[in-house]
Amino acid sequence: MVDKALGGAGLRGQSAGETALCTVGKSGTGLTYRGYDIAELADKVSFEEVAHLLLKGHLPNAEELAAYRQKLKNLRGLPQALKTVLEQIPANAHPMDVMRTGCSMLGNLETEESFDQQSEMADRLLAAFPSIICYWYRYSHDGVRIVTETEDEQIGAHFLRLLHGKAPSELHAKVMDVSLILYAEHEFNASTFTARVCASTLSDMHSCITGAIGSLRGPLHGGANEAAMELIQEMKDEQDAVDTLKRKLTHKEKIMGFGHAIYRESDPRNAIIKGWSAKLADEFGDDRLYRVSVACEDLMWQEKKLFCNADFFHASAYHFMGIPTKLFTPIFVCSRLTGWAAHVMEQRANNRIIRPSADYVGEEPRSVPELNQR
Amino acid sequence: MVDKALGGAGLRGQSAGETALCTVGKSGTGLTYRGYDIAELADKVSFEEVAHLLLKGHLPNAEELAAYRQKLKNLRGLPQALKTVLEQIPANAHPMDVMRTGCSMLGNLETEESFDQQSEMADRLLAAFPSIICYWYRYSHDGVRIVTETEDEQIGAHFLRLLHGKAPSELHAKVMDVSLILYAEHEFNASTFTARVCASTLSDMHSCITGAIGSLRGPLHGGANEAAMELIQEMKDEQDAVDTLKRKLTHKEKIMGFGHAIYRESDPRNAIIKGWSAKLADEFGDDRLYRVSVACEDLMWQEKKLFCNADFFHASAYHFMGIPTKLFTPIFVCSRLTGWAAHVMEQRANNRIIRPSADYVGEEPRSVPELNQR
Repeated sequence: MVDKALGGAGLRGQSAGETALCTVGKSGTGLTYRGYDIAELADKVSFEEVAHLLLKGHLPNAEELAAYRQKLKNLRGLPQALKTVLEQIPANAHPMDVMRTGCSMLGNLETEESFDQQSEMADRLLAAFPSIICYWYRYSHDGVRIVTETEDEQIGAHFLRLLHGKAPSELHAKVMDVSLILYAEHEFNASTFTARVCASTLSDMHSCITGAIGSLRGPLHGGANEAAMELIQEMKDEQDAVDTLKRKLTHKEKIMGFGHAIYRESDPRNAIIKGWSAKLADEFGDDRLYRVSVACEDLMWQEKKLFCNADFFHASAYHFMGIPTKLFTPIFVCSRLTGWAAHVMEQRANNRIIRPSADYVGEEPRSVPELNQR
Repeated sequence: MVDKALGGAGLRGQSAGETALCTVGKSGTGLTYRGYDIAELADKVSFEEVAHLLLKGHLPNAEELAAYRQKLKNLRGLPQALKTVLEQIPANAHPMDVMRTGCSMLGNLETEESFDQQSEMADRLLAAFPSIICYWYRYSHDGVRIVTETEDEQIGAHFLRLLHGKAPSELHAKVMDVSLILYAEHEFNASTFTARVCASTLSDMHSCITGAIGSLRGPLHGGANEAAMELIQEMKDEQDAVDTLKRKLTHKEKIMGFGHAIYRESDPRNAIIKGWSAKLADEFGDDRLYRVSVACEDLMWQEKKLFCNADFFHASAYHFMGIPTKLFTPIFVCSRLTGWAAHVMEQRANNRIIRPSADYVGEEPRSVPELNQR
């Protein structure tokens, strides 16, 4: 239903097309990918299976899964020209700018010439994104040119190995895998919608994904887990968490990581990542960040009836795995790419160029004054 | 009004927000930038004045105009890291991929840290875009590293000098100037809407513009002038033009450069660029391309009641000025950047994140089968 009072602002509640990929908040809480509940997916399958589900249309059987993992492994290398580009980007650049540029540059070198290639393009980006962000990060921060081809079967473990230069623990590999599943797809959010608007002009896959990365970069969209990390890392203990949040609420500051545009009662991803964050805290040996996070969750519900969204416990979870805060949103990209690419393919399959109208609120027709009359 | 039959497809007729920048087809034919008619602007002012109008809100007086031109002149140089990136892109790359990557890369080097910088960012991109595309083109095609700083007062002449390595004729400089005016702004078209969706997440200027470039790249959006060129260059004379089009119409092939999603009777930009194309044909000494274009225009009206849009006579005009066909859409970028950036600023000034809904047409809730049951 169109919200007349808002005059079209944000297109909230207006349908911009059809999708078979995802439902968000249908019962107020749920999230499904192609009909499968997110909690069951996170419990039973791996990220590569979710990627296959989104990109190829079904959960792979054992043979398909092995072949898909092998294929993605074979696509982890970066062309020299792309490495040279990444080496030009300074250490203080915004990592989302690096992702955006890396994706765009790859489009020059491996251009999608026909939509017959779309599935190949998506697989290549899925395999290459961890390489892009980690190659740049390690080169610009540590001065090393890493080899981006690894023997890890799974993308989560592969990412952690590229970042830390060593194999991750089983627990870390598992949590990264779950995290990638949780972030993979979320219907017509702003970055996905960006990808679909771009796709509706029949542009190429790299353009669509590059545009989506740019939108996810915005602080109203991606980046909430980074903001949550900045919030909790200053909190000494539970009491400090409570005091800090109460002070912020008094000053009407926005607390990132709480509430959601669509979910009304809870974010189904929160309980999942919260459980894994607790396990990581145990292993880490210092559970302060977990404890203050729980204190924040309790207080925000008590004071504002706001629940944690997917981002809040991701902050502590990523931190326990030694991931620098500035790489949180690029990990989101490595995951959400699957949803974006699936939406691009869906838009192409039943396309009409997305071209809304605008309400004109400007000057009435007027004559151009001569230069000396202005 | 929402078109129910289309189920939200393309958002046609649905308002996605307010704008004071532009009206398109209000009387069936008109185009205005901030209330000024496109024909009067093309007749009386320069592209830098239009850029100032769109980006700063008003037509500059003589002093402001001189200062603005000087400022833009001073911003034409490219950082070495960006030149190195452009040198990594092969000659056979899609020039829109080059623009997209050049814009994205610049965002790493000159990041918009605060919206206070938005006007500066737009000016910088306006000055740098001709440098980006011409530096890459001349390096990859001719093996030369051009100096992108020139003394030309105007962007059109500057572009032609970078491309050809010599000062353009007065006529060519004038036509480029007019062309840049005609393409500067066009309300909520798909690339502009992409920029606004990205802006609505409060992302940075480079992300918004990079995304817009990716959308303009699509064959349903930008690129119609390139397609028109490919059509007319094969036509020997007027009779051949008529025969070719009739054959294509019989086979229901789409003829690029005709008709428009919004205009119903004519595109107000066509008469303007058509007039200049005629003058260029005279100077060129071989008016075949102009004559076959006129023959196409007559036939399409006669047979299909379709009029030329802005793109059709741009093909012959650009060709007469010695511009390679593959650079037509990048010139569009150099111009439309002004509209895109103005829309980004407008979105930011009254923002709500753009997040439409989707109609779900996928699987009902189902259980995840075990791997060996698939």
